[in-house]
Amino acid sequence: MGYYKADIRDIEFNLTELLKVQDWKDFGLEENDVKGILAEYNKYVENEVFPTREPSDHVGVKHVNGKVIVPESLHGVQKSFYANGWFALGMPAETGGTPVPESLYVACMSLATGANCAWTMYPGLSRAALNVINLKGNDFMKTNIIPKMMEGTWGGTMCLTEPGAGSDVGALRSTAKPLGNGKYSIKGTKIFISSGESDLYENNIHLVLARTPNGGEGSKGISLFVVPRFKINDDGSMGGTNHVICSKIEHKMGIHASATCEMQFGTDGETEGWLIGDEFDGMATMFIMMNEARLYCGIQGESQANAAYMMAEKYTKERVQFGKEIINHPDVRRNLLTMRAQARGMRALCLYTANLFNKAHKDPKAEAIIGLLTPICKAYCSETGFQVSSNALQAHGGYGYCTEYGVEQYVRDTQIAMIYEGTNGIQAIDFVMRKILKDGGKTLTALTAEIVAAVQSLDDAKFKKEKDIFNKVLLSAQGVMQHISTYAKNNQFNMILQNCTDFLNFASQMVIAWQLLESAVLADKKLASASADDKKYYESKVTDFRVYCAHYLIHNLSTAKTITDFTEDMTTLEI
Amino acid sequence: MGYYKADIRDIEFNLTELLKVQDWKDFGLEENDVKGILAEYNKYVENEVFPTREPSDHVGVKHVNGKVIVPESLHGVQKSFYANGWFALGMPAETGGTPVPESLYVACMSLATGANCAWTMYPGLSRAALNVINLKGNDFMKTNIIPKMMEGTWGGTMCLTEPGAGSDVGALRSTAKPLGNGKYSIKGTKIFISSGESDLYENNIHLVLARTPNGGEGSKGISLFVVPRFKINDDGSMGGTNHVICSKIEHKMGIHASATCEMQFGTDGETEGWLIGDEFDGMATMFIMMNEARLYCGIQGESQANAAYMMAEKYTKERVQFGKEIINHPDVRRNLLTMRAQARGMRALCLYTANLFNKAHKDPKAEAIIGLLTPICKAYCSETGFQVSSNALQAHGGYGYCTEYGVEQYVRDTQIAMIYEGTNGIQAIDFVMRKILKDGGKTLTALTAEIVAAVQSLDDAKFKKEKDIFNKVLLSAQGVMQHISTYAKNNQFNMILQNCTDFLNFASQMVIAWQLLESAVLADKKLASASADDKKYYESKVTDFRVYCAHYLIHNLSTAKTITDFTEDMTTLEI
Repeated sequence: MGYYKADIRDIEFNLTELLKVQDWKDFGLEENDVKGILAEYNKYVENEVFPTREPSDHVGVKHVNGKVIVPESLHGVQKSFYANGWFALGMPAETGGTPVPESLYVACMSLATGANCAWTMYPGLSRAALNVINLKGNDFMKTNIIPKMMEGTWGGTMCLTEPGAGSDVGALRSTAKPLGNGKYSIKGTKIFISSGESDLYENNIHLVLARTPNGGEGSKGISLFVVPRFKINDDGSMGGTNHVICSKIEHKMGIHASATCEMQFGTDGETEGWLIGDEFDGMATMFIMMNEARLYCGIQGESQANAAYMMAEKYTKERVQFGKEIINHPDVRRNLLTMRAQARGMRALCLYTANLFNKAHKDPKAEAIIGLLTPICKAYCSETGFQVSSNALQAHGGYGYCTEYGVEQYVRDTQIAMIYEGTNGIQAIDFVMRKILKDGGKTLTALTAEIVAAVQSLDDAKFKKEKDIFNKVLLSAQGVMQHISTYAKNNQFNMILQNCTDFLNFASQMVIAWQLLESAVLADKKLASASADDKKYYESKVTDFRVYCAHYLIHNLSTAKTITDFTEDMTTLEI
Repeated sequence: MGYYKADIRDIEFNLTELLKVQDWKDFGLEENDVKGILAEYNKYVENEVFPTREPSDHVGVKHVNGKVIVPESLHGVQKSFYANGWFALGMPAETGGTPVPESLYVACMSLATGANCAWTMYPGLSRAALNVINLKGNDFMKTNIIPKMMEGTWGGTMCLTEPGAGSDVGALRSTAKPLGNGKYSIKGTKIFISSGESDLYENNIHLVLARTPNGGEGSKGISLFVVPRFKINDDGSMGGTNHVICSKIEHKMGIHASATCEMQFGTDGETEGWLIGDEFDGMATMFIMMNEARLYCGIQGESQANAAYMMAEKYTKERVQFGKEIINHPDVRRNLLTMRAQARGMRALCLYTANLFNKAHKDPKAEAIIGLLTPICKAYCSETGFQVSSNALQAHGGYGYCTEYGVEQYVRDTQIAMIYEGTNGIQAIDFVMRKILKDGGKTLTALTAEIVAAVQSLDDAKFKKEKDIFNKVLLSAQGVMQHISTYAKNNQFNMILQNCTDFLNFASQMVIAWQLLESAVLADKKLASASADDKKYYESKVTDFRVYCAHYLIHNLSTAKTITDFTEDMTTLEI
């Protein structure tokens, strides 16, 4: 059954009123063009993507005679996605793409992801691999691989994880030996490779991390290789097998339509690959792709939370119990209002972060802020996406637990976003250790200054309670930072590491509240001269901010106490 | 794959050291007998129940030619469960049962539920129906039905829900017309009937809510009927069909091995039933069963959280990343320690509540406290069970998302406990409106006095921080109660209803912290003279309390602010 409706009004507000993406003049898009692309994409998603969601989940991916067979329903959408030019949206001009402001691209991609997350991983990973090849590849790759990937004949993957090397990528054992002809012989087993093999693409371009003979231990000895599933002849045509084998697919809780493969390189013959980027620079090169994938994880949470929320809104407006629609029962309404505040807050954050990409070309500070916001997008949005999905299921009562309503799939499909591309625990460590401490707190200070300014300028009369909560939270943030700095100075890193997750949650809720604040203030300004429909919408934005402050931001005060007051080193506590 | 190990030491502590169930002299059990029964039951669960968990989930229930076929693997455990006398454990002597202290029975049942929740629903519902028949049935039922249910030849169900009557049971439309021979003709459709039909039992005894011709609208016009799947002859033998049909089974997110049936009564012929309890007293009679089912939902959360925790503990002690077992990474250890505090806190609460049943015979106050704790057990344990399961999955990284590790099943299987037997929203309303306001706050005041006394007697030196947090929470509880009372006096019930869920969470965390406090204080006393192993265990109990206060109880301070400071009526806020 299921139900698809996107909150287009809210997406438009973010893009054209708050971020004003039409002001990125390079793209030559007027406000109406932005809305037009969004509307067109949304129509496509509603008609072609969403109908594949439940059937492809029910059928799942099959592994038959070594081949990976995706659900039949995906072949149509896969073709039309490339044919209609949606894959090209947001890609650089030199690859044959259609450049648009990054946040418009992300808004569109979010629609598709909310409508069938598992399927979007095929073009999604292909895009990420393509971007690496475009940035770091040689002319041969650009001439012969990129066009095939742009037209959707070939796909792409990222191959990092090995059985003994999950979070600890540096422990990997795959090897790459020079063959003397500029190519390398790749040997090893990779696991959890999304889109590792499928019948959606003729050929698959794997970006594989491996160690060259001189590559020392750990992550510094690793290099990145372009490894096609089928060899590529000198004239660019596809050759014979490159001995890349999918030896197993995983049976998973969700994203059943996404092939999660165990891949063997060089097991039944020689697998050839080309070095991409400098030798030993594999981790850095891979991180071009990884950062994109981390933001995409956040969008998986954001998009599915918003989609699940819309389902729950519709259901609770129709279902009658005790003589009225259940949305009019206060407890259900609280559930819906808190879900909406979270879901829209995540949307605002993801679009804001995406918008910084267009600034980053000219402004290195913007790039640092993207780095700071990436673990927040990844961890907060994946976790909150899971929670909102579960609450949307709950709003459906017993029906929500039945597969035919389509909402339980959001719970199963969002769960993985908390794990892959670096677990949320890894994100928390990255956030505190690299993005804050290694940076000397510079970027965090800059971002906090923006937040402080926004809070200070809040109207005292209209937003008294919210300003009060926010000011208390900002004060407690100082205490938390002080606490962390002190332990850092004393080299007591366990005491910091055991609080990373709480600290990331703290920062995330502050950032989301700030995003909702900016929206509320703008909406409030526009209320006076708004049409009846717009008035209702703008009021809902003010409500989102109020609800978020009262139900989530307020908890930062307790989280701060958890961080500062629990002073035992947890690794000394027996389990 | 999966892994089964129960934290027997902790269960023994609760039963024999904290609750001292051996002191219920009626049962004639010494401390060693209690431990012996527990050990025997645990061996059975490990060898016979747990191995069925994953296979029965993967196969699921089938609906073939109108028959409901359960996974083959369940037939063996179903037989041995009855044959070994485990079904009889805790049942009253007059039914042929083996009476034991209620908390010992619950501890055992929790082991089975954690090992295969879906399967336990068959004997679980049968037991609940049997108890109603034993309390309210006539001699014919007691003579002819109970022995069949005790030996496991016949099963039982509860049939409340209809398509238009979910939470709003009073809206049901099923009818019961007197046939003049003491029997009634039952007509109607019931949905979401667990164990509604299966090939595990020869006959199924349905307890069905329906309206007699003089039954007015709403829940006051409803009566309860005993409706067998196959007729029962006057001599007690099984007759022909009673025209009870399973027209559909639901495809669900989890508990795949439990048959969730749509049931038709009186569609293809006359369905006969007997009235049980007084006419129009159906809701009250059904609530004997419902209260048991609600506690059982709590135990589903508690048991699966504990089972999932044990899996995560084992996995993180074995998995090495960055040169050490991941449990020794501070962020993972925090995850494990917070999970353990929650899981053991739930266990303490469930066993404490069960233990009150033995008191309730002599002490009406104990019965009122059971009533107050029931929505806490149901809602808090189901929700926290889900969270802990999700965190246990997270601790497994990508492996946790794969079905073969068995941990993702806990997430899917616990989700339903938040919904059935009254959604957690309904529990919150029951808690605040019936168990507190309708009671004039008497029972809550009595329970709070116990908690206050426990907190006051905490050693200031040893538990300084915890005492401080708890005292602040108790103070904020007064503010919250004041807030609720004021709105109640002004008949502004929306303002109370929109906060019910937060209020129930607040109370739940206070109660769990209190349970962990009692454990910690006792463990702390025993530390001095403990053996090395016991010392380690007792220290872990002190840790649980500390961790719970610092990571969960502290959040009550923020939750209290949410309740008291958000003063807009949410039903007036536009969605």
